[in-house]
Amino acid sequence: MAGNSFGNIFKLTTFGESHGEAIGGVVDGCPSGLKLNIDYIQSELAKRKPGQSKIVTQRKEDDKVEILSGVFEGLTTGTPIGFVIKNTNQKSQDYSHIKDKYRPSHADYTYETKYGVRDYRGGGRSSARETACRVVGGAIAKQVLQHYGIKIDAYVSQVGELKVIKHYSELDLSTTYNNAVRCPDEHLVEMMFNYIDKVRKEGDTIGGIVSCVITGTPVGLGAPVFDRLEADLAKSMLSINATKGFEIGSGFSGITQKGSEHNDAFYTSIPLSDQSSKEVRTRTNKSGGVQGGISNGEDIFFNVAFKPVATIMQKQNTVNKDLEEVEITGKGRHDPCVLPRATVIVESMAAMVIVDHVLRNRTSKLIIDN
Amino acid sequence: MAGNSFGNIFKLTTFGESHGEAIGGVVDGCPSGLKLNIDYIQSELAKRKPGQSKIVTQRKEDDKVEILSGVFEGLTTGTPIGFVIKNTNQKSQDYSHIKDKYRPSHADYTYETKYGVRDYRGGGRSSARETACRVVGGAIAKQVLQHYGIKIDAYVSQVGELKVIKHYSELDLSTTYNNAVRCPDEHLVEMMFNYIDKVRKEGDTIGGIVSCVITGTPVGLGAPVFDRLEADLAKSMLSINATKGFEIGSGFSGITQKGSEHNDAFYTSIPLSDQSSKEVRTRTNKSGGVQGGISNGEDIFFNVAFKPVATIMQKQNTVNKDLEEVEITGKGRHDPCVLPRATVIVESMAAMVIVDHVLRNRTSKLIIDN
Amino acid sequence: MAGNSFGNIFKLTTFGESHGEAIGGVVDGCPSGLKLNIDYIQSELAKRKPGQSKIVTQRKEDDKVEILSGVFEGLTTGTPIGFVIKNTNQKSQDYSHIKDKYRPSHADYTYETKYGVRDYRGGGRSSARETACRVVGGAIAKQVLQHYGIKIDAYVSQVGELKVIKHYSELDLSTTYNNAVRCPDEHLVEMMFNYIDKVRKEGDTIGGIVSCVITGTPVGLGAPVFDRLEADLAKSMLSINATKGFEIGSGFSGITQKGSEHNDAFYTSIPLSDQSSKEVRTRTNKSGGVQGGISNGEDIFFNVAFKPVATIMQKQNTVNKDLEEVEITGKGRHDPCVLPRATVIVESMAAMVIVDHVLRNRTSKLIIDN
Amino acid sequence: MAGNSFGNIFKLTTFGESHGEAIGGVVDGCPSGLKLNIDYIQSELAKRKPGQSKIVTQRKEDDKVEILSGVFEGLTTGTPIGFVIKNTNQKSQDYSHIKDKYRPSHADYTYETKYGVRDYRGGGRSSARETACRVVGGAIAKQVLQHYGIKIDAYVSQVGELKVIKHYSELDLSTTYNNAVRCPDEHLVEMMFNYIDKVRKEGDTIGGIVSCVITGTPVGLGAPVFDRLEADLAKSMLSINATKGFEIGSGFSGITQKGSEHNDAFYTSIPLSDQSSKEVRTRTNKSGGVQGGISNGEDIFFNVAFKPVATIMQKQNTVNKDLEEVEITGKGRHDPCVLPRATVIVESMAAMVIVDHVLRNRTSKLIIDN
Repeated sequence: MAGNSFGNIFKLTTFGESHGEAIGGVVDGCPSGLKLNIDYIQSELAKRKPGQSKIVTQRKEDDKVEILSGVFEGLTTGTPIGFVIKNTNQKSQDYSHIKDKYRPSHADYTYETKYGVRDYRGGGRSSARETACRVVGGAIAKQVLQHYGIKIDAYVSQVGELKVIKHYSELDLSTTYNNAVRCPDEHLVEMMFNYIDKVRKEGDTIGGIVSCVITGTPVGLGAPVFDRLEADLAKSMLSINATKGFEIGSGFSGITQKGSEHNDAFYTSIPLSDQSSKEVRTRTNKSGGVQGGISNGEDIFFNVAFKPVATIMQKQNTVNKDLEEVEITGKGRHDPCVLPRATVIVESMAAMVIVDHVLRNRTSKLIIDN
Repeated sequence: MAGNSFGNIFKLTTFGESHGEAIGGVVDGCPSGLKLNIDYIQSELAKRKPGQSKIVTQRKEDDKVEILSGVFEGLTTGTPIGFVIKNTNQKSQDYSHIKDKYRPSHADYTYETKYGVRDYRGGGRSSARETACRVVGGAIAKQVLQHYGIKIDAYVSQVGELKVIKHYSELDLSTTYNNAVRCPDEHLVEMMFNYIDKVRKEGDTIGGIVSCVITGTPVGLGAPVFDRLEADLAKSMLSINATKGFEIGSGFSGITQKGSEHNDAFYTSIPLSDQSSKEVRTRTNKSGGVQGGISNGEDIFFNVAFKPVATIMQKQNTVNKDLEEVEITGKGRHDPCVLPRATVIVESMAAMVIVDHVLRNRTSKLIIDN
Repeated sequence: MAGNSFGNIFKLTTFGESHGEAIGGVVDGCPSGLKLNIDYIQSELAKRKPGQSKIVTQRKEDDKVEILSGVFEGLTTGTPIGFVIKNTNQKSQDYSHIKDKYRPSHADYTYETKYGVRDYRGGGRSSARETACRVVGGAIAKQVLQHYGIKIDAYVSQVGELKVIKHYSELDLSTTYNNAVRCPDEHLVEMMFNYIDKVRKEGDTIGGIVSCVITGTPVGLGAPVFDRLEADLAKSMLSINATKGFEIGSGFSGITQKGSEHNDAFYTSIPLSDQSSKEVRTRTNKSGGVQGGISNGEDIFFNVAFKPVATIMQKQNTVNKDLEEVEITGKGRHDPCVLPRATVIVESMAAMVIVDHVLRNRTSKLIIDN
Repeated sequence: MAGNSFGNIFKLTTFGESHGEAIGGVVDGCPSGLKLNIDYIQSELAKRKPGQSKIVTQRKEDDKVEILSGVFEGLTTGTPIGFVIKNTNQKSQDYSHIKDKYRPSHADYTYETKYGVRDYRGGGRSSARETACRVVGGAIAKQVLQHYGIKIDAYVSQVGELKVIKHYSELDLSTTYNNAVRCPDEHLVEMMFNYIDKVRKEGDTIGGIVSCVITGTPVGLGAPVFDRLEADLAKSMLSINATKGFEIGSGFSGITQKGSEHNDAFYTSIPLSDQSSKEVRTRTNKSGGVQGGISNGEDIFFNVAFKPVATIMQKQNTVNKDLEEVEITGKGRHDPCVLPRATVIVESMAAMVIVDHVLRNRTSKLIIDN
């Protein structure tokens, strides 16, 4: 109810402010018997960590996760997995410029009004630092999904006007994390990098798109009516800081198509895994892998729009707590573009949505066959 | 968990298939003491009803709501409001063409696989008929919101390539329901109507956009992290049949903007309602009324992308239950364009999200002042 | 949140007042593929129905359930099962004696204060009539449990001072519903019947105990910490009107025992079903079938204390809406003892708790084996 | 769903095993603006801490709580309060005697079967150590309740056959924590102490009753039907380790009473706080402060039955993982009677139930007046 939990069966609850003692969380409902790889969790956190290149914030955060419970002799026990990430870099900063002033397009004013009090240091709870806990939850979820052969790959597909034109099937998504931009289209990487760097030097910021592909999902994930798979994905994505839009399959481009162009014709195919069987496939995938709110076995793909980061190194007009009109100028080490650090967050949220529906789907039929 | 409930405090649970006895639902958590106008609920249902013009399906459905509980001497009592809408037009149809064949881009195949059984008549639970219950929930929610001076207006802003260019503030949103298209831009109404009619005659369908504006919201609706107001709105919209995208404020167009262009500068203003006070406003509203996941008092506005309706009156390739490749042709009375009937559904879902957060927000502070 | 839903995966939501149009509800999360026997639901309702003998209320209520959705060609489809029970006997009564007066030990005063308005007719939402919907939910749950070989038997074990001394294993629980008292101890039936009838003639009421035995549960139902099986059973029982206590296994009698007497020693046994295997059993069952909050495969048994019905045919002191001290006398047709009609309600609530945990338990392990 | 969260609006999620790194939790939904006294939380933990006298376990646990988030400059901010309690005393123990053997009446066998794996050290998640986190949640809840003048007092009212006969109104409940037994009846303290000590020397354990009184509750807490206040209290109590029963008001003793004896007659009274007003009171309080599931403003009181602790220092028969019948003898430092350490846990769970319903109740009416 207070908004710090996500999921139904596989549920992540997080806590922590940017400059408090620590951030952390609890993953409840992770099935028992999973060989949990903690190095993998740490490597996922590394993808989100600040300071990896000059186009992201130069803050130094170790983001060292400590797993406190729920794992015994390397296996998950079915009990809650508690974890903390200490805040190690928060001591000496000066927040006088934001203590009493509301930063434009930030959460300062809305938090202050909603709660009557706010931890202004580094944005407090509204800081993107909170997303590190999502990555921990997502890294656990991904390990559950490995058992099902489900894989999730997000990548930066647009920065400002620079846009990946190729379909994801023409890209090698295993190369995404080889570059600082997190773009698998080698022709665009340098241009995107230089563009973000130029924006950074101007003290400005820029938005873009993260695309995401989920492969290997069985038919049947998602629930009718209110908990359609795309509804839960949309919520998960719009819950990430700085997101302004979500589209699945044909998305906003589908609005100009006619039904005769947009429908995905069914056909049958012989799967590689079992050549004596037949499976139902679709010729096209305008649906984006979801029909009637339920996965149809095709790839799930969607786009997430990110606005430019609100903190800029330029003078802006704003209002202070005494309701006086004042000026404010950004300070400190901020991201000129949130996208390179956002891909792993998008993957993490998607992973938690999918795991949750995999577990929910086990309860759909009287006789279990999945 | 099975996906037929929506909301936390103000909660709608629905049931019913297209061709069963009745559809219906329960609104639990509606505050007591509301003078419930049942004629208003009926008038909202009328906006969604089939058969209103030649550009929507010609099915005859009365959609007469019966309120069974929760209201006494005209006032809500705080107990659940049960309601049913009888299915009156479902007797004589012939479903042999879909009983064993999976209609492309419909829910037939995914439901069959997920549950092992499906009510194929008219799409069963996956039929858009289910949305009538959302309209009942929304019409109750809207009456709660009237007490807070909150108003919700959705309208058709694009059909295929035909697009409303004007900003919503330049339109008279009170005229939306005066025409069959549900478009408040009088210059476009006829064009849109004729275009949809042309598509209909071709046995085809077309997509488009519904835009929505929410005015009068206080500062403070929404919760940090996972239950941001835009996340809950996104989920609510992507839970509607045929939606493929959601964007709030600047949305997908914000991705090419820089922070210096995109940020909404704060200033102070003297509200009309109390000229001795001051209020915090923003010069622009790229945020779409939500900052840090919480409403900032500005108008909330968002767009929802609808794909073309999947049922077309043309021959298509598909697969049957025996996994044979077959052909299928649409029959019956279907919508060439879902948009004219969707505006009230969009408003209804938005209304339920907002009421839920209004009630949730009452629990935020130790000392209540809202 | 408003308290009209029960369960997590198998969830019942109910609505309806004693003298409104109808009562009803929605069962969401019932697995698909269940051959639903509606006659069985009706026969369960008959066990709770008024007017079955002179020791229960003489009201005439048909309690005819209408299933509106979720079933197709006799099978559950995995979609919500909506149902209504019309109120047929509510027209002509006179409620002037309770409209403005608060009946002692009833919900009149608390509802009025909480909500500012109440449907006083027949107690409105607080009427025990609401429990008919629980019986519908329970009758569906019991049919799911049949697939697991799980059986639930409740019976009246005490009325006033008249108490069944025998252990449940010495009773033939299949005879419980053969008599009007719902007591399987034939030696006590007549005494109990006559005692209740005597109390009735005095215009008074009497309390008692319903005992309940659940057989056939697998090991593993229940969740650690907050959702222990006994915790969920306790909640379910204390949610029934007129209950004041719950005890499981040794219950309140266990408090005077020492650990050395109370502990249930484990041993191994060869099950009849598979003579090549071994199973873990306990010599005694003070635990009542639950250890560490999780079922251990032994019988689950518990007692529920019911207070005497609050409506008596005698003059009592009370207060009216204007806060004046006044007298009130019961009118109409009421139960002198709630127990005979309560056994099926106890069974129904227990069945819903067990089904919910059976489904929840499917999500406990990475590799499913249940 | 996995059972490690409690509450709806004020929600506690806990994690941690007896011998892992740490236990801890998250309180989400605590209202903002509360001056949080952390010393008070620590003093509450001290009431539950082992080693306080010779009649409780001699383990040394510091139980030092670290608050990691949700508090800024002494005030709660409305964001989640994360906390950990390090496990400091878990290093050197020898668990070989329970690694492969199932302790009778413990959770070893059920956890092992449910999850396929368990952390056997000290009972892992099933250890009563987990209740320290409930005390943290309760200590925060109690501070919220202070603002409403609501007070919660639990005490040991029975140990074995030694029973407090006096009504709670005849006892000075402020003296409960002055003695090691936690009994406010000075005539019984020494007898109870000596009795527990005698049982301890025998290597045995004994059960008893904790009684609890809640004063100062407003009329209106609790929800109709499934979330009755007594239902939520019952669940909260039966979720505590070693509890076997719950009764409210007249409880099990009410079953032999007639309605004419049991009903609580209403009258009006002039409250001390406002002598110009009138309030509704009841002459007796068999209801235990709850009518129709909703608080009526009278004291809420209930009893909780605790069985004897399962770990005894005597030889017992049991079964090992290979399903061989073996013997087991308790080792280590255990409680001969759980009651002295349980009173604060009972208070904590009750406090969380009450706070949750105080916040829920803010959403009941269209016009807020509470």
